[in-house]
Amino acid sequence: MSYDDTSLALHEKHHGKLRVETTVPLETKDDLARAYTPGVAAPCRMIASNPADVWKYTIKSHTVAVITDGSAVLGLGNIGALASLPVMEGKCALFKRFAGIDAFPIALETQNVDEIVRTVAAIAPVFGGINLEDISAPRCIEIEQRLATMLAIPVFHDDQHGTATVVLAGLLNAAKVVGKELSKMKIVVSGAGAAGSAIVRLLHSYGVGDIIVTDSKGVVTMHRDDLGWLKNLLASFTNKSDACCMLFDALKGADAFVGVSKPGVLKPEMIAVMAEKPIVFALANPDPEMMPEEAKKAGAAVVATGRSDYPNQLNNVLVFPGIFRGALDGRIRRITPGMMVAAAEALARLVPSPTAENIIPPVFEPRVVSVVSAAVKDAGQRSQ
Amino acid sequence: MSYDDTSLALHEKHHGKLRVETTVPLETKDDLARAYTPGVAAPCRMIASNPADVWKYTIKSHTVAVITDGSAVLGLGNIGALASLPVMEGKCALFKRFAGIDAFPIALETQNVDEIVRTVAAIAPVFGGINLEDISAPRCIEIEQRLATMLAIPVFHDDQHGTATVVLAGLLNAAKVVGKELSKMKIVVSGAGAAGSAIVRLLHSYGVGDIIVTDSKGVVTMHRDDLGWLKNLLASFTNKSDACCMLFDALKGADAFVGVSKPGVLKPEMIAVMAEKPIVFALANPDPEMMPEEAKKAGAAVVATGRSDYPNQLNNVLVFPGIFRGALDGRIRRITPGMMVAAAEALARLVPSPTAENIIPPVFEPRVVSVVSAAVKDAGQRSQ
Repeated sequence: MSYDDTSLALHEKHHGKLRVETTVPLETKDDLARAYTPGVAAPCRMIASNPADVWKYTIKSHTVAVITDGSAVLGLGNIGALASLPVMEGKCALFKRFAGIDAFPIALETQNVDEIVRTVAAIAPVFGGINLEDISAPRCIEIEQRLATMLAIPVFHDDQHGTATVVLAGLLNAAKVVGKELSKMKIVVSGAGAAGSAIVRLLHSYGVGDIIVTDSKGVVTMHRDDLGWLKNLLASFTNKSDACCMLFDALKGADAFVGVSKPGVLKPEMIAVMAEKPIVFALANPDPEMMPEEAKKAGAAVVATGRSDYPNQLNNVLVFPGIFRGALDGRIRRITPGMMVAAAEALARLVPSPTAENIIPPVFEPRVVSVVSAAVKDAGQRSQ
Repeated sequence: MSYDDTSLALHEKHHGKLRVETTVPLETKDDLARAYTPGVAAPCRMIASNPADVWKYTIKSHTVAVITDGSAVLGLGNIGALASLPVMEGKCALFKRFAGIDAFPIALETQNVDEIVRTVAAIAPVFGGINLEDISAPRCIEIEQRLATMLAIPVFHDDQHGTATVVLAGLLNAAKVVGKELSKMKIVVSGAGAAGSAIVRLLHSYGVGDIIVTDSKGVVTMHRDDLGWLKNLLASFTNKSDACCMLFDALKGADAFVGVSKPGVLKPEMIAVMAEKPIVFALANPDPEMMPEEAKKAGAAVVATGRSDYPNQLNNVLVFPGIFRGALDGRIRRITPGMMVAAAEALARLVPSPTAENIIPPVFEPRVVSVVSAAVKDAGQRSQ
């Protein structure tokens, strides 16, 4: 079923998906005098003399920016700022629905890295956190790192870290299902863009010893001379066994395949050469690297996708609302890999007895945001 | 009575004055599929192929940015971005309360003119209009003019044009009260900053033939060699009679005094030298150039201030909500002096029989926003 027509009708009816409301009364002259002049000078003066009071008297403590440059929107590619807005508004709606966070969409009319960094830093004062969205790799990584260093509020690129965190949560429970230890597994990640590179970095930081990354040209290895800085970085700490050649070669003896690449890259004969009880996460959206029925038939013990019409949906919405809720509540300045691992573990624990068809809680499970936010807040406090 | 304590309590209780709400249901998987992936790709594709569809499918058609650099906030001066936020949120609240417009506050962490222009242009896609606020003169004029030229959405600096429009509305009815014709009046404007310079320009554009501007050093005239570019510009089309020296000299025979300067600059002996039935608008806030009782005693026929505790409150909130409502509804790309004159005339007409104590409708008069917006929309359509 296509949602195109009903989605267009929904967006047209409401003129988008957000509105800004006032939370204070404005019905009398006295109301105006408290919310605006002359009374408003009092909180202004307080903040001028103690900048931390901005968390007390303004919307900063509950407000997040959802920012894109429109360069890598969904599977649609570089469609630009205006056309990206429905996605950014949708993300803001999810922030509200799942974590009660007030999020506002900002689509930038520039795709220059320096300009993006400068612009986001310039508009940061009103926000308690920055969620970067749908910015193409490897630019997204430079932008995120530079902003995280410059700003005193958390900067989170969901396509990278939201995806990596939910994948780690899924792997934790999938490993339980097949009776293996995650840190001793050999994992092949297909795709070395924003999501793939973040998954590799988070798995590495978790302690997975043997990770191989592949792109459309095969294994990402130091022997290749066609790699940019990001893939070079990944090659520097992956592929321990010095595997060569293509995805098929990399998958020999692998315990898990994690695909964030494109439809059709995984073939039944590749699953056949993997280790016993292979795990297949085919996360390309909306069409996965291999359809679940086919993966099962080819021998996969656990299969996950990004789709809501199959079991084991690995969806970022399980992660980013709780991460930001925890970061805002804990007044955390920077979201670290340790916090993401804590979030993944908390998410995995919500399924105490995982099975092949149930490794991750459903999107609407009401406990998700509270356990993830508590884990992040807790990890943040421990690290301070 | 001071509003300081109740204002602080109000701001702390609600953590500011705004929240972002979703306008679409998000309770089922189908809801998610329409508002977010995969359905959201449909409006994205429509906008990518026809950018004007952004007005149909996103919040752009009802959303305005309230932008400051914190350089000239209320009477508090250059208190910076963070401390300006309570004012910007308050302005957004007024947009919602009076015109149903969704406004979002952006306080910039830069006071460099080029950076400000670049930043506002970069974040413009989601907004249907830009309201600049509390930016110091003469920078505010350069910023506004450059942005208005660059962007295809209206850019309005309320401290300039909101003030100028409500002053013109007040003068139209004050002229009626004293039985004079506005275009033939001699008007002295005290203050040559953002508000003063905009008042002078709008009165000139309306056809007031004899305008004199003064600053703290006296009459702004071509003979002075201490003027910056803005005052030079004002001097080029004002002071027809080549008046010299101080405010007292300028006021000889003047029909109206319009003060946007500071408390105490107007003295009884100055009113004494004005023409018959002098009009005194003492708009410095919160303390006017002269208190109304004193102005009356000195012979003023009509007195107006910016205060809510005296008759004839000339408040920008009578103007900017309707101006933006009309601009958004009429899809107007640029707010022209003609539209401001139309708005002022519409506002003035709401008081069909003005008296000395009643030249302008009260702030909560419910017809204000509709007549102002209709006038702007109408003027916009006539000019296209």
